[in-house]
Amino acid sequence: MATFGMIEYADASPEVRAVYDDLMATRQTDYINNFWKALAHDPAALKRTWESIKQIMAPGALDPLTKEMVYLAVSATNQCGYCIASHTAAARKAGMTEAQFAELMAVVGMANESNRLASGYQVEIDERFKTGA
Amino acid sequence: MATFGMIEYADASPEVRAVYDDLMATRQTDYINNFWKALAHDPAALKRTWESIKQIMAPGALDPLTKEMVYLAVSATNQCGYCIASHTAAARKAGMTEAQFAELMAVVGMANESNRLASGYQVEIDERFKTGA
Amino acid sequence: MATFGMIEYADASPEVRAVYDDLMATRQTDYINNFWKALAHDPAALKRTWESIKQIMAPGALDPLTKEMVYLAVSATNQCGYCIASHTAAARKAGMTEAQFAELMAVVGMANESNRLASGYQVEIDERFKTGA
Amino acid sequence: MATFGMIEYADASPEVRAVYDDLMATRQTDYINNFWKALAHDPAALKRTWESIKQIMAPGALDPLTKEMVYLAVSATNQCGYCIASHTAAARKAGMTEAQFAELMAVVGMANESNRLASGYQVEIDERFKTGA
Amino acid sequence: MATFGMIEYADASPEVRAVYDDLMATRQTDYINNFWKALAHDPAALKRTWESIKQIMAPGALDPLTKEMVYLAVSATNQCGYCIASHTAAARKAGMTEAQFAELMAVVGMANESNRLASGYQVEIDERFKTGA
Amino acid sequence: MATFGMIEYADASPEVRAVYDDLMATRQTDYINNFWKALAHDPAALKRTWESIKQIMAPGALDPLTKEMVYLAVSATNQCGYCIASHTAAARKAGMTEAQFAELMAVVGMANESNRLASGYQVEIDERFKTGA
Repeated sequence: MATFGMIEYADASPEVRAVYDDLMATRQTDYINNFWKALAHDPAALKRTWESIKQIMAPGALDPLTKEMVYLAVSATNQCGYCIASHTAAARKAGMTEAQFAELMAVVGMANESNRLASGYQVEIDERFKTGA
Repeated sequence: MATFGMIEYADASPEVRAVYDDLMATRQTDYINNFWKALAHDPAALKRTWESIKQIMAPGALDPLTKEMVYLAVSATNQCGYCIASHTAAARKAGMTEAQFAELMAVVGMANESNRLASGYQVEIDERFKTGA
Repeated sequence: MATFGMIEYADASPEVRAVYDDLMATRQTDYINNFWKALAHDPAALKRTWESIKQIMAPGALDPLTKEMVYLAVSATNQCGYCIASHTAAARKAGMTEAQFAELMAVVGMANESNRLASGYQVEIDERFKTGA
Repeated sequence: MATFGMIEYADASPEVRAVYDDLMATRQTDYINNFWKALAHDPAALKRTWESIKQIMAPGALDPLTKEMVYLAVSATNQCGYCIASHTAAARKAGMTEAQFAELMAVVGMANESNRLASGYQVEIDERFKTGA
Repeated sequence: MATFGMIEYADASPEVRAVYDDLMATRQTDYINNFWKALAHDPAALKRTWESIKQIMAPGALDPLTKEMVYLAVSATNQCGYCIASHTAAARKAGMTEAQFAELMAVVGMANESNRLASGYQVEIDERFKTGA
Repeated sequence: MATFGMIEYADASPEVRAVYDDLMATRQTDYINNFWKALAHDPAALKRTWESIKQIMAPGALDPLTKEMVYLAVSATNQCGYCIASHTAAARKAGMTEAQFAELMAVVGMANESNRLASGYQVEIDERFKTGA
């Protein structure tokens, strides 16, 4: 059992329900996953986090699938079990194929490796990489 | 100064030069960045790492720009200064616009935030996210 | 099952019991949590770690509740499941309210986000932040 | 030099200036630190991040000094150089004494140590720590 | 249940079986652990990862036990549950005693602590530590 | 410049000098590195940290070189610049050869890669790895 009970729609305050409603409408689903039901213990955080994620994950210069895969890449790097499970599901819903998942994990793994090689060998930043925009 | 001197092409062994040559040909550049010049102290690691990165970063189910942005997302999450600088440059070379960079960073930041909220609230994985392939 | 069995009080050596006794007296409890029972496989580490934690967590310039919340903030950042569970319990015992927990998590989440934005944007340290004590 | 030039007030768009103005008014300062000047390349992220931080760091169930110290604890755990420098300055401005800083670092260090001992020893969560709210 | 079913030997393609065979021969075991059975969903990654690990973990300037303990140290630092369990088993198979495990964890814990103290106190690198090879 | 000035031997209190003296005697050196001079702002932390490190890094079931290499492996994983520089120097002083350093980094890199593959593929712990001591 989680430390915090999940706040179900039926038990939610109007403020929390408003977020749940917007989340379900935006994502075209009737399912509220546990992350939100836990965060609902803090309605201000629920609303703020949802509004930010809604804005950040909307289609823009990057398409939704790319954004979901980046989210999954960060979650795998941080080794957040909940986040890996939920964002693997979200990325699949957004169209991620098994082949794309496999390539994504390969890049994530290699980046985590070379990050440590660069640090361990104390590699200096190349002058040409320092040039500002 | 880095702990390890950089091994320049002129000073490199044939084994190291072969990797440098393949890297420059593959990336269509005449520049070897410091990461490789440092790693060249271990020719086996240089060759193994380059062969892996060459294979992983090649176009496939994911395009090269997406792969570079994922690499950058991991590097920013790990806060590897060298890697952020070099992969920001690589992603730009692969076509990343300023707008794409900004959206990428927004996703990376939010994922790092929600990863901790999920962990801190001890959110249990939804049953539907546990369904295997 | 954990890799290491838990060393119960009844089975503990005098050296381990002395730590258990001091821990229970200091914390005014008759419960030894699993962390200590596992660490008891290395009596020197058990004693050293307990002595350090006892010294560090004692009231001082920071009060015990603040210290417990900082401990929880670090554990959530590192995504250590055991530590989040045990230090949430400890912080509550020290008086943390639900409102304080929620604000704590909000700060932890935001700090993890802005840490990556600062790194990803390669922000230079302001001159005024470099001024030594 | 950072990858992105800093956007100074004089060069900022009205949208960016509005955030800068609110930030300076809220913090009672005439100084905009580099984090914001870099993030200003993405006005939407600038506004969203500032609004979130303003809301999260406001006095509430936790006082501003405690919040700043938690922010610093997370930044030290993540080893974000910019963030450590800027939030050490912010915590001092909020009243952090040298003794409080020293105790804060001691807790951060010990939490990072015991997090790994708990994970490395594969300690199972005590039943009593699983009891939900 | 894991997201990806495990690919058993009986169900594996010739390409995957070749890796399984080499792994079992190299490690002198008839057991394939879950990591490989999951990674087998991407035969190219399976082969690449196995070839790299086979090369890296072979006896060389460092003996196999030392390498397994370093692998475990990294896994404990990253708090990867699967990796801690599997590499604790591997290190024991390579000869790690309980006393060695305990000392290993003590070093891992202390390094994680002092890493944050060094960062939090913003300690500058000593000139003598900057001298290159 | 670091936030905290370094406390030199000539300016140190008797309590701090006692730690410096013991450190120099134990390590057979007349050099105090910056980490300790910064930590000396908190004499209790200085003494506690030194006593712990002295105990942990002493020869035991693991030899000093192995311990220094594990310390370096953790520091590279955490990407702590100061710690990588100082512990590379310490490991060399303890006898680490260039070949050993290269193999160490290879293991560190690969462990960081496979940690994320295990997490990303949501690999379940093998039953045989769960068997307790």
